[in-house]
Amino acid sequence: MPNTSPIISILTDFGERDGYVGTMKGVMLNIVPNAQLIDISHEIQPQNIQQAASILADVYTYFPSHTVHLVVVDPGVGSTRQPIAVETHRGRFVAPDNGVLSGVIRSEESWKAVLLNNQEYWLPTQSNTFHGRDIFSPCAAHLANGASLEELGTPLDNLTMLKLVALAISQHAIKGEVTRIDHFGNVLTNIKVLKWIDTNTLELTPEYDNESQIMQISADKAQVTAGWHTMEGIHRTYSEVPVGNKIALVGSGGELEIAMNQGNAAESTAIKVGDPVTIQLSS
Amino acid sequence: MPNTSPIISILTDFGERDGYVGTMKGVMLNIVPNAQLIDISHEIQPQNIQQAASILADVYTYFPSHTVHLVVVDPGVGSTRQPIAVETHRGRFVAPDNGVLSGVIRSEESWKAVLLNNQEYWLPTQSNTFHGRDIFSPCAAHLANGASLEELGTPLDNLTMLKLVALAISQHAIKGEVTRIDHFGNVLTNIKVLKWIDTNTLELTPEYDNESQIMQISADKAQVTAGWHTMEGIHRTYSEVPVGNKIALVGSGGELEIAMNQGNAAESTAIKVGDPVTIQLSS
Amino acid sequence: MPNTSPIISILTDFGERDGYVGTMKGVMLNIVPNAQLIDISHEIQPQNIQQAASILADVYTYFPSHTVHLVVVDPGVGSTRQPIAVETHRGRFVAPDNGVLSGVIRSEESWKAVLLNNQEYWLPTQSNTFHGRDIFSPCAAHLANGASLEELGTPLDNLTMLKLVALAISQHAIKGEVTRIDHFGNVLTNIKVLKWIDTNTLELTPEYDNESQIMQISADKAQVTAGWHTMEGIHRTYSEVPVGNKIALVGSGGELEIAMNQGNAAESTAIKVGDPVTIQLSS
Repeated sequence: MPNTSPIISILTDFGERDGYVGTMKGVMLNIVPNAQLIDISHEIQPQNIQQAASILADVYTYFPSHTVHLVVVDPGVGSTRQPIAVETHRGRFVAPDNGVLSGVIRSEESWKAVLLNNQEYWLPTQSNTFHGRDIFSPCAAHLANGASLEELGTPLDNLTMLKLVALAISQHAIKGEVTRIDHFGNVLTNIKVLKWIDTNTLELTPEYDNESQIMQISADKAQVTAGWHTMEGIHRTYSEVPVGNKIALVGSGGELEIAMNQGNAAESTAIKVGDPVTIQLSS
Repeated sequence: MPNTSPIISILTDFGERDGYVGTMKGVMLNIVPNAQLIDISHEIQPQNIQQAASILADVYTYFPSHTVHLVVVDPGVGSTRQPIAVETHRGRFVAPDNGVLSGVIRSEESWKAVLLNNQEYWLPTQSNTFHGRDIFSPCAAHLANGASLEELGTPLDNLTMLKLVALAISQHAIKGEVTRIDHFGNVLTNIKVLKWIDTNTLELTPEYDNESQIMQISADKAQVTAGWHTMEGIHRTYSEVPVGNKIALVGSGGELEIAMNQGNAAESTAIKVGDPVTIQLSS
Repeated sequence: MPNTSPIISILTDFGERDGYVGTMKGVMLNIVPNAQLIDISHEIQPQNIQQAASILADVYTYFPSHTVHLVVVDPGVGSTRQPIAVETHRGRFVAPDNGVLSGVIRSEESWKAVLLNNQEYWLPTQSNTFHGRDIFSPCAAHLANGASLEELGTPLDNLTMLKLVALAISQHAIKGEVTRIDHFGNVLTNIKVLKWIDTNTLELTPEYDNESQIMQISADKAQVTAGWHTMEGIHRTYSEVPVGNKIALVGSGGELEIAMNQGNAAESTAIKVGDPVTIQLSS
């Protein structure tokens, strides 16, 4: 890495008020003073590992591959859950072993992991309730500063993984569910990865599901249903419907998204995380 | 720019939860690893171009002139609105051409602009719904990294401008309106630029309005009315009235401001954006 | 400080929406372009000096000692309250003299302070309502850039201090109060500093109170009462009770904390800042 700053991204459920994130940054600047410290989010719903895993999976590939991603959503702090570090070709990760790295692991062809049990890389004293400060931050900073994964602890072969909700795919329909509502009220789903292969044809590669076949969807004939709402066609961008209208489209992460042009789709439809979403196909 | 880091400021309506801002930062660090990435705000009301334009105009002059300001409030993403870059003596700007740079353009004596149509400076693939990531961020990063405006695209002579609400000025009164409520509940108005020229005399230079004359106001005799509330005099600072009292004063941006000493003026008066504000003058 | 970047931490009640923090960062980057600018919090309740003082005291010791901490919670802006800078062995501080540095001053064996009255280090023009931008930020940046405390102004011997609520300590009970509710709904108290000296024994060193004796507490026999709620024992970490149960434990700052395993203790108990908290001791 000639001539590049170390980069550490930070993703937590700490909120922005209490100074907890600032404390971790202080700890890391003692170890790696010239690091770029980049906030991904601190507004993960408290203890929501699934939400953090989903956001991390969407974001990390856009960072330089020498980035260390520090992820502290840690409902089991102080219990038997293990602190880990993971290395892939597209980034390194420091986190509790609670599934928060599931999306990353599923996206990578290969990875290696260690248990963070070399206490030389921890703060000298540790609390039982803030391992983000006492264990995860110093380990992330040492990694960014040049330590190898192996120096931080002993190898691990198995990691905790979150369960996936599989798509139900038939000749006539694809059924998935709502995974996230974003700040704009856009409704994101687990029906991904969608890719335009010509003006009207979408290719669906069901994520993480090697047995499923790649499917083709006729976009203008598809019908999307979520909750009480049905939308005709799958579109490219918000402005293809009038302001204030609902629309189903391919989101920026390649997922089926339900949105409202210049409005808040989630608020006006009351669709929520976990709700079923269906694409009806016609031949 | 010897010995100074590139600086990129970022202003969006993305919120802080979903990792969208982090994604843009990752994109930019691939291009300009040593940049200072500075958040202006990500709490612009979704799609509120006017609010973003107003905050940007207040903030940008305090940054070094080599700063690139990345502004992504982009309700028309994916439609025909154009992505642009603008260069002035006090900063460069990357934004959609939807008026969000109006306040900057009006404050600058000269500027040049380009359409961001050189796809070499975009990400290799582009979504239809997140040009902040795919077009604006990489272009801002390349500018900060030394690319010239001309390399990014072809010159533009006209930019989209927001309409201004002109002040109504007579011998006896100045009428304007509320433009913003800030985090403290301070009520900001379009009656600016106000400047103290002696202990009791304020000079008003109506902004962006070359035909208007500069006026002088006797501060202690002025009466300020907003909604159902009338305040005597125009003051210098909050503590000139008892804690919990309303006061009209000259805000830090040179605008007429209505505030409450150690309280929230907007909440206790129910004044809101768009409400008329009047200064009654007496001779 | 060879080979380390200047660091400036920032703690305000400005919120994140209006660009006020960004403006201060712009001002500082003009003076010290290579500084690490680290946000501690901008979500301090408006004008809540006590809350800011408490968070600052918890955070600053984790930063490198060459950090300059810029603290702008300033209800008296424009009045007679003084702008100050303080130097300690563990950090330098720029703030209004309103008590916001009380926690720092009490934690440090020695300090020196100056009144920020050398206008050469201010912005050329100053508003009456935003000294964060016009006085505090440029002074902090000059300190970070190598100016000595003495250059910024004339020495001060006395600083404004917040009053402490003393603990009431008897043979059978320790009475304190709730000082803060954090983002997770954890309830923090002024009963600190608690330290485990063996598996079941806690040592209490009442903070800032040189006359009090250090006490020992039998953790499993202690009973903690706050509001209508009584909890048995003082524990180490959240997972020692089932999910959804309340627990009294030693927080990451060494204080008695009342929490709920994977839940929000403050919401489900209605305990609030200022409420009394008691540890009943049994011999």
